[in-house]
Amino acid sequence: MTQHNIRNIRLPSLKSNQHQIAHYFPIIQWLKNYSREDFNGDLFAGIITAILLVPQGIAYAILAGLQPEMGLYASILPTACYALLGTSRTLSVGPVSIAAIMIASALSAPEIIALGDASQSAVILAAESGLMMLLMAVLRMGNLINFISHPVLAGFTSGAALLIIGSQITQLADLKTPSCGLALDCYQNYLHGYNIITLTIGMTTLSVLIFFGKPLTTLLKKAQLPLTLITAISKCGPLLAIFLATLAVTYYDLHLQKGVAVVGAVPAGFPSLNLNFISLEKWRLLLPSSIFIALIAYVESVAIAKVTANLRGEKIIPNQELIALGAANLATAVSGGMAVAGGFSRTMVNFSAGARTQMAMLIAAGILAVAVTFFSDWFADIPKAALAAIIIVAVFRLVRIRHIIHTWNYDRGDGIAELVTLLGVLVLGIEKGISLGIILTLASQLRKTSQPHIAVVGRIPETEHYRNIKRHAVETWHHLLLVRIDESLTFTNISYVEDYLADELNRQPNIKHVVLIFTSVSDIDATALEALEKINEGLQRSGKTLNISEAKGPVLDKLHKTDFIAQLKPGKVFFRTEDAAKELG
Amino acid sequence: MTQHNIRNIRLPSLKSNQHQIAHYFPIIQWLKNYSREDFNGDLFAGIITAILLVPQGIAYAILAGLQPEMGLYASILPTACYALLGTSRTLSVGPVSIAAIMIASALSAPEIIALGDASQSAVILAAESGLMMLLMAVLRMGNLINFISHPVLAGFTSGAALLIIGSQITQLADLKTPSCGLALDCYQNYLHGYNIITLTIGMTTLSVLIFFGKPLTTLLKKAQLPLTLITAISKCGPLLAIFLATLAVTYYDLHLQKGVAVVGAVPAGFPSLNLNFISLEKWRLLLPSSIFIALIAYVESVAIAKVTANLRGEKIIPNQELIALGAANLATAVSGGMAVAGGFSRTMVNFSAGARTQMAMLIAAGILAVAVTFFSDWFADIPKAALAAIIIVAVFRLVRIRHIIHTWNYDRGDGIAELVTLLGVLVLGIEKGISLGIILTLASQLRKTSQPHIAVVGRIPETEHYRNIKRHAVETWHHLLLVRIDESLTFTNISYVEDYLADELNRQPNIKHVVLIFTSVSDIDATALEALEKINEGLQRSGKTLNISEAKGPVLDKLHKTDFIAQLKPGKVFFRTEDAAKELG
Repeated sequence: MTQHNIRNIRLPSLKSNQHQIAHYFPIIQWLKNYSREDFNGDLFAGIITAILLVPQGIAYAILAGLQPEMGLYASILPTACYALLGTSRTLSVGPVSIAAIMIASALSAPEIIALGDASQSAVILAAESGLMMLLMAVLRMGNLINFISHPVLAGFTSGAALLIIGSQITQLADLKTPSCGLALDCYQNYLHGYNIITLTIGMTTLSVLIFFGKPLTTLLKKAQLPLTLITAISKCGPLLAIFLATLAVTYYDLHLQKGVAVVGAVPAGFPSLNLNFISLEKWRLLLPSSIFIALIAYVESVAIAKVTANLRGEKIIPNQELIALGAANLATAVSGGMAVAGGFSRTMVNFSAGARTQMAMLIAAGILAVAVTFFSDWFADIPKAALAAIIIVAVFRLVRIRHIIHTWNYDRGDGIAELVTLLGVLVLGIEKGISLGIILTLASQLRKTSQPHIAVVGRIPETEHYRNIKRHAVETWHHLLLVRIDESLTFTNISYVEDYLADELNRQPNIKHVVLIFTSVSDIDATALEALEKINEGLQRSGKTLNISEAKGPVLDKLHKTDFIAQLKPGKVFFRTEDAAKELG
Repeated sequence: MTQHNIRNIRLPSLKSNQHQIAHYFPIIQWLKNYSREDFNGDLFAGIITAILLVPQGIAYAILAGLQPEMGLYASILPTACYALLGTSRTLSVGPVSIAAIMIASALSAPEIIALGDASQSAVILAAESGLMMLLMAVLRMGNLINFISHPVLAGFTSGAALLIIGSQITQLADLKTPSCGLALDCYQNYLHGYNIITLTIGMTTLSVLIFFGKPLTTLLKKAQLPLTLITAISKCGPLLAIFLATLAVTYYDLHLQKGVAVVGAVPAGFPSLNLNFISLEKWRLLLPSSIFIALIAYVESVAIAKVTANLRGEKIIPNQELIALGAANLATAVSGGMAVAGGFSRTMVNFSAGARTQMAMLIAAGILAVAVTFFSDWFADIPKAALAAIIIVAVFRLVRIRHIIHTWNYDRGDGIAELVTLLGVLVLGIEKGISLGIILTLASQLRKTSQPHIAVVGRIPETEHYRNIKRHAVETWHHLLLVRIDESLTFTNISYVEDYLADELNRQPNIKHVVLIFTSVSDIDATALEALEKINEGLQRSGKTLNISEAKGPVLDKLHKTDFIAQLKPGKVFFRTEDAAKELG
């Protein structure tokens, strides 16, 4: 047991001045102690993740309404860029489904379509999102994500996933090309005839993928295979399914003979560095969408990074993540790719395949580079239906209806926020939906803080302690009202305090002296001060006094700059509530 | 001295079910006890206020860019309507300068001009503002004004007053018709030649008005005249100045001979009830402006009403004010007038002239009705320069530079908000300026609530009281961290709490048990619960426990609906912090 007197506690300071460079390049930290063992883990995880990245990259580019190569390009330079700068050791940055549907929504706006060249628009969107993240990093606005509540984020994710599934179901059977954004647009495209061959390919791929999930893993575990082998086999599902589907298309010439939609020619070789994205009008029009993409990409990436970091006791530094993700998005723009973020399923695959560091992602990026350079013509015959199946399986787990029910049962307000955001996304679209959710939760939060906790207190007999008369057996005085306000006084809550006092004085007309106990009041803003002056005036007119006790130093300093304390006379400022009770009680 | 046990305090309830009709028609309450003496006071005040209303009505209509009669109409039916419904006994409702400049700004939007018929637009604006207020009343949103801080309101008022003065200075010398909104538009109109006769009339009126202010009152007080007479004489300034200026114009035919701008023909007789304001497109386009006018008219009116109500110990009921002002604005629309609100100078004149009840305003409205019916042709030759002088003198006191300095010195954040709002109004315009101020203050408020007060506590020796170790001499334990969180846990502040705990644990690696003291925690939302689960996981992984003490009933009930308390094991929920210290210390 230790005895303390006044002790200093330093507030958290996230940054140390040592290792300034290592701070901005976390890779330096882990490379110093990099071992052979680390490399083995990273190599295996890198290969497995690359196997997942190829079909995902193509699929998400098509989901976004772009050429397939834009998803592949987004898996090389940006992935490597994050590996150098990111604080997460296992986050897999590249094309992701939620960003893809947001890109699709942004590019489907009539004024953007009117300006033509969708690829250029997508590149501008990525660049602008990247710059936005860097700007947030410079302004140290990483904490901005604290203003998006989890229910809003969960509702948004579920809604976006439903939109994606809606858009992909049409692809499963070659119905019509989806150009969604608004859910209604998608649904209208249904049931205009379908292609039976495409449907067969789609459903078969879907079955294979579902089989490669839980069922196969369970089987292999029963066969007592080593865990790494199980991971390797089960994660090859997408590639195998794509391979078989593509083989069928090529062998039977299903594209030309039966009209099965395929990916089409993918240009070979490295993406040439592309700096041709100067269109001021597009930059201006895409600004709102890029802000949303930056926000969501950042929030989702940090959330995913935290999951794996928590499992290993590592630390994610939000502001550095903004820098890393911002740089990755600029990198994707420069190399002609689509906007990127950390992907949940890919990161979990990378992590469970044994990735120790971002070396795994450097390896994956290398493999993608090789694939793009030498094997791009293998991608031309991939049927879109197979990709749609991959997307549907990947995003299905993002629709979390049970989460809504769970939230609803725990906190009605949060449940409503989650449901409203989900419906908002489905009915109003991606950006308006999430805005609605954010505004709703912030407004309700403001409303809550406008009703501070206030307690009428009395003295616990034979002590100098003053407690809530509703919860303790306390002494009170006939002419004295002791009121403790448990929050700083600001423009949002001062009128609640006014009403509370007026009501209390109405109920107890005998009161002659009111003492406001300021133990928890850390600040009084200008609006609150004016209101206190008015309360004091009113009390004085009816022959009562207003007094203050236990005000903190900074609050008193501020009040001493005004003539409020002089106005209080004969009311007083007491150091302790006990003094006030002795003198006025 | 009284001994209390658990005692119930009812929360404020503004409405009693008795006197339901009297509640909606406050006039019934005071008419019951209306005396001869009351009538004498009201009659005098009504006449004086009417004398002020005539020039103000015409002037503010011209300021809004409308026909002069629209200001006069707005002084009859709406004034009477408020008299029946309003809870203030002395508020003078009619045309006001701030609403006038807001109307001018709304009507100067190109898309509104394109639809033609400015009078119709003004009537729609009034009707829509009135409906908006009634809607707010139905939704019981009277408290919404608590989210506009006084500095923002003061900055807005100063900015709007400067805009008005800018627009009227041109009128003083017949420069060009102002069609402001953006300050730049006004300033560009300067110095394009001026009319020396107009300038003379303007400056003379200005001098007379200034003389009728402080100087004359001081003189009359020295002459020991009775106070009512002083009031009567000094308040006749505007009418006298207008009368002399008009006489000069008529006598020397200055309008036709010298081009002095005058009010022009005012149609005689009662306004015919006008229900011809159906233009859906205009309703839609004017919606944002009408929301702002409703908000500002309501906020300013209630603020003014409270000033005089406080002086007499009367009570203003915000929700009933919404109903009264909403009805007054519908009344002005129906009678072809402009949007109305409570006017500060008029209300003060009414009050100091001895008004006891709204009977004074019924009398004033009656006088206006007579003036409009029989003397409307007297108004045609009023020079606009004289009206401009009246406006300038009336709004000059609204520019409160000293208030900004005062606010700035008291609270830097509030000072910035006031200045930004003022500059915002001048540079961006009326509506964007106040939006900027509101958003700025609400954002800063949200930021503040995201940093709750947290204290590490220890035991005051030989007691069971636990206090902040930074401010009291207390005992602490080597393995035990007692943390009191002084606010409800929500999505905006939970990550601050997380960081605080992480930092504290970093500084004290010896800690084995963390106890969160929930005395001030009234709620834990879904986001905060998830974060607590994660904190618990992290602590358990490093062999520590998370415990809770002094949680309130509703909080525990909520937690019991989840498996959080089971997750805590071996961590526990303690009833008192003392129990936790005994078991874990």
